[in-house]
Amino acid sequence: MRERGEFERIRDIVAALPGGEGVIVGPGDDAAVLRPGDGRDLVVTTDTFVEGRHFRRDLLDAGAIGRRLAAANVSDLAAMAATPRWALVSCVAPRDADPSWLRDVELACAGSLSAAGAPVVGGNLASGDGPIAFTVTLIGDVARGAHWTRAGARPGDVLALTGFAGHAGAALASALAAQPPSFGAVPEALAERYASPPSRIALASALAACGGVRAALDVSDGLAGDLAHLCEASGVGAVVRDASFAGDRALEGAARALGVDEASLRFGPSDDYELLLAIAPEAWTGCERAARDVGVTLLAIGSCTAEREALLERADGTRAPIRGAGWNHFA
Amino acid sequence: MRERGEFERIRDIVAALPGGEGVIVGPGDDAAVLRPGDGRDLVVTTDTFVEGRHFRRDLLDAGAIGRRLAAANVSDLAAMAATPRWALVSCVAPRDADPSWLRDVELACAGSLSAAGAPVVGGNLASGDGPIAFTVTLIGDVARGAHWTRAGARPGDVLALTGFAGHAGAALASALAAQPPSFGAVPEALAERYASPPSRIALASALAACGGVRAALDVSDGLAGDLAHLCEASGVGAVVRDASFAGDRALEGAARALGVDEASLRFGPSDDYELLLAIAPEAWTGCERAARDVGVTLLAIGSCTAEREALLERADGTRAPIRGAGWNHFA
Repeated sequence: MRERGEFERIRDIVAALPGGEGVIVGPGDDAAVLRPGDGRDLVVTTDTFVEGRHFRRDLLDAGAIGRRLAAANVSDLAAMAATPRWALVSCVAPRDADPSWLRDVELACAGSLSAAGAPVVGGNLASGDGPIAFTVTLIGDVARGAHWTRAGARPGDVLALTGFAGHAGAALASALAAQPPSFGAVPEALAERYASPPSRIALASALAACGGVRAALDVSDGLAGDLAHLCEASGVGAVVRDASFAGDRALEGAARALGVDEASLRFGPSDDYELLLAIAPEAWTGCERAARDVGVTLLAIGSCTAEREALLERADGTRAPIRGAGWNHFA
Repeated sequence: MRERGEFERIRDIVAALPGGEGVIVGPGDDAAVLRPGDGRDLVVTTDTFVEGRHFRRDLLDAGAIGRRLAAANVSDLAAMAATPRWALVSCVAPRDADPSWLRDVELACAGSLSAAGAPVVGGNLASGDGPIAFTVTLIGDVARGAHWTRAGARPGDVLALTGFAGHAGAALASALAAQPPSFGAVPEALAERYASPPSRIALASALAACGGVRAALDVSDGLAGDLAHLCEASGVGAVVRDASFAGDRALEGAARALGVDEASLRFGPSDDYELLLAIAPEAWTGCERAARDVGVTLLAIGSCTAEREALLERADGTRAPIRGAGWNHFA
């Protein structure tokens, strides 16, 4: 990436991007000018993916890296009941980085962001002699005061999870266990959960219309860790029913192949970009129906409690503390 | 920077930050929730500083690095006539980076952003085994439709510059010429122009109130390069009068000490974070008065022309093409 070519490179990438609503001045000036809707609050998040830590070029193609980067940000907005509107994508890469690979990552990321409603309206390219790093800042909006937070769950609320927990981590662990590391031998459905995390924006929007969601966050650390964040912020505890996860063939298979406990995959580190929700009991049936209408699996996995601890209830009725990375933050 | 400590580190930094207006949900949730004013457009920019390219730890202390990072973003918003509202600050650093140094950079940056009107409402910390990189995304606002762009200058417009061009580049060149490289022997006024770039937000706001600014951009590449950007976007040319810069003692001294032409410092690469403006001739007197009222030097350096070339007019009336990095983009 030659220094002199920076302007031309930015123009190239920008020219290939889809436009969007509410963009008064797009990329190319000192800043972008954007028109928010009347009576809307903004919801803003940022996430950085660093090579070697968040992605490996020997494991994932440029498209999957770009899609995951977009998903990490889109999922934060879904967890706030917000609608993505605009995005900025920045990159730090060595001067000798392959420009077409960089372009492919940025275009895949921009494509996913745009599909979620957010055209790329700006960004930055800088050279740096280290691992490649991409940073996305995503701006969304929500009806004034209608956002969800992590704080608001009450004892008795239904704990609900979209999709599946632990699949991304299981897919990655399976790929890393191969010699050489590769997603080649990972069952396709599981690999796909890692390479193309689904957007939960439509589901969040449908649940927001139903009402009854009292707290939400996205599962980006792992179910145990993120449940801890929700409980801590809300001042509640949780009982999660092991039986609610029965029949998760993909995770069963991965656990067997890896020789580990299925629960360790389900609760351990995994950036699934799914939503964990606390829903008022009287609203549960309506939320379940709304999820079905938008074609998203919404699983009641337990409930919130007044005791400030998180327990896993086994099929035989016995209970034990949930273990998993991040849970120490609950203390 | 241990992985496990990331949450605690973010909390530490966040707890030390000043709060701000319109922040409904600050740092700590999946995203920040912000309340824009009615009838306002958003103005959004992002800039990344990479160690070794944008800053050197042996030359600048953490405070100066943080202030310059803030200035790079604030200046983009000033160039759009916008008011800074909220900021996100992200950092990629090796695990063994000095946490108190990182904290000092982030606090200095947050302090400058906050002084400009933008509290930090989110961000990200990630480990990466390469040069330290900081990314700021700055969100501002402006009355609907009242933003400036680079496109809009017309032949006959007054070309005006805030402060001085080339001082930041001259300061850096002077510091790099020392053995070992150091700002120690650089005249304090010049060094200060590099270490603490002034905010032009108040000036931009005063000029916007006057009316008559037809195009603007911030001088972050260097006067020749940025003049080229303005001319290209506006479809005009320019004549810059050399005599308008007479008596710039700081630049004269630096040129003499470095053994280079004063004009090469003035027009060459320099991230001054000043504003270059094209002002309707009939509005010039009012703009000049407004600048004086806010205590900012606003220098008429020439005028826009219909010929698509940029010329420097010498004291003897002869004209020659302006040379300088970036000017090739004009072609």
